[in-house]
Amino acid sequence: MLITFEGIDACGKSTQMELLAERLEKEGLDVIKARQPGGTSIGQAIRKILLDPSNTEMTPETEVLLYVADRLQHIEQVIKPALKEQKIVLCDRYHDTAVAYQGAGRQRDLTWLKPIEDKFIQVPDLTLYFDITVATSQARLEERNKALDQENCRLEQEDVDFFNRIRSAYKSLAEREPQRFVIVDAEGSIESIQEEVVQIVLQRLGK
Amino acid sequence: MLITFEGIDACGKSTQMELLAERLEKEGLDVIKARQPGGTSIGQAIRKILLDPSNTEMTPETEVLLYVADRLQHIEQVIKPALKEQKIVLCDRYHDTAVAYQGAGRQRDLTWLKPIEDKFIQVPDLTLYFDITVATSQARLEERNKALDQENCRLEQEDVDFFNRIRSAYKSLAEREPQRFVIVDAEGSIESIQEEVVQIVLQRLGK
Repeated sequence: MLITFEGIDACGKSTQMELLAERLEKEGLDVIKARQPGGTSIGQAIRKILLDPSNTEMTPETEVLLYVADRLQHIEQVIKPALKEQKIVLCDRYHDTAVAYQGAGRQRDLTWLKPIEDKFIQVPDLTLYFDITVATSQARLEERNKALDQENCRLEQEDVDFFNRIRSAYKSLAEREPQRFVIVDAEGSIESIQEEVVQIVLQRLGK
Repeated sequence: MLITFEGIDACGKSTQMELLAERLEKEGLDVIKARQPGGTSIGQAIRKILLDPSNTEMTPETEVLLYVADRLQHIEQVIKPALKEQKIVLCDRYHDTAVAYQGAGRQRDLTWLKPIEDKFIQVPDLTLYFDITVATSQARLEERNKALDQENCRLEQEDVDFFNRIRSAYKSLAEREPQRFVIVDAEGSIESIQEEVVQIVLQRLGK
């Protein structure tokens, strides 16, 4: 079973994925934790190009193609073999991130991706979308940076619009595929959200 | 004007591109020489992943996507701006290489690439396809390796079939687009081929 974790920055998905993994392992289940980009050694090299701050000239299409190259490598090399062995694969960000961030966020037409999606992207059995407002995201990022003694990253209006477009895109995706998506209200406490996530997943697993 | 140079290994295209560039510069023309992959700094980083011998697990689709990511970056960052300034861009390998090598050579269905081709690949004004037999390619590669004191790389039967498929693919492409392609018999001497190439290009340039 492939379960993906999606949402805007600081929505808590990585924390919830860790907590869910622990819980499922306690249930005696075989769990693999993964992330995109960078889930393979080839993906790590691709991730390095994507995150290199000197690559300012990268075109939006090159960016999308590098993310997809990382994803296909990860699917073939890690996800599919694990699913074949009946493992539960938890993945922090997946293809919906491309649709939300590169598509809606950067306002690019991604219809050219359709044949690749249809042919090569393993469809998740369950996608947990952690919904928070952009204001909550901003407040959490500020707090996080303060704790790390990093520069305050107050979002500009441009960024607020950017993240609002991403949030709307996630909601549209969830509406379009209600069987695959579950929207989790992620404004609450870590513990209450964790309880909800565990219930959703155990139910899907028939436990 | 975008002129691309295609053919199987050791067909002489890189040499001919250099000679043509010199000649066109002598005619007072503004020429840019480029190659794929690796025509930009981002492309250099992508090329490094593609050529890293430790990346044995790379899937054929990841390979194609990395080549395309390199190509789109190169087109937007180098080729289009140069064409806008009326420069002549000579490119050693281009998108036909993907169709011939990854498609026909590796026998992969590349129909999923079609929307990317249609939307983002700048169509060359002229493609020079340097045609040699696989036997000639093999003999030249052996000679080249001997000169460089490298290990002899006698092709296995598998490789012979691989390169024969690539050669056939190039010929089909040339047949399908006779306006864009010119087939150059590349079995002869460097000088005679050079003369032919110069004539073809000067004629296209209306000189």
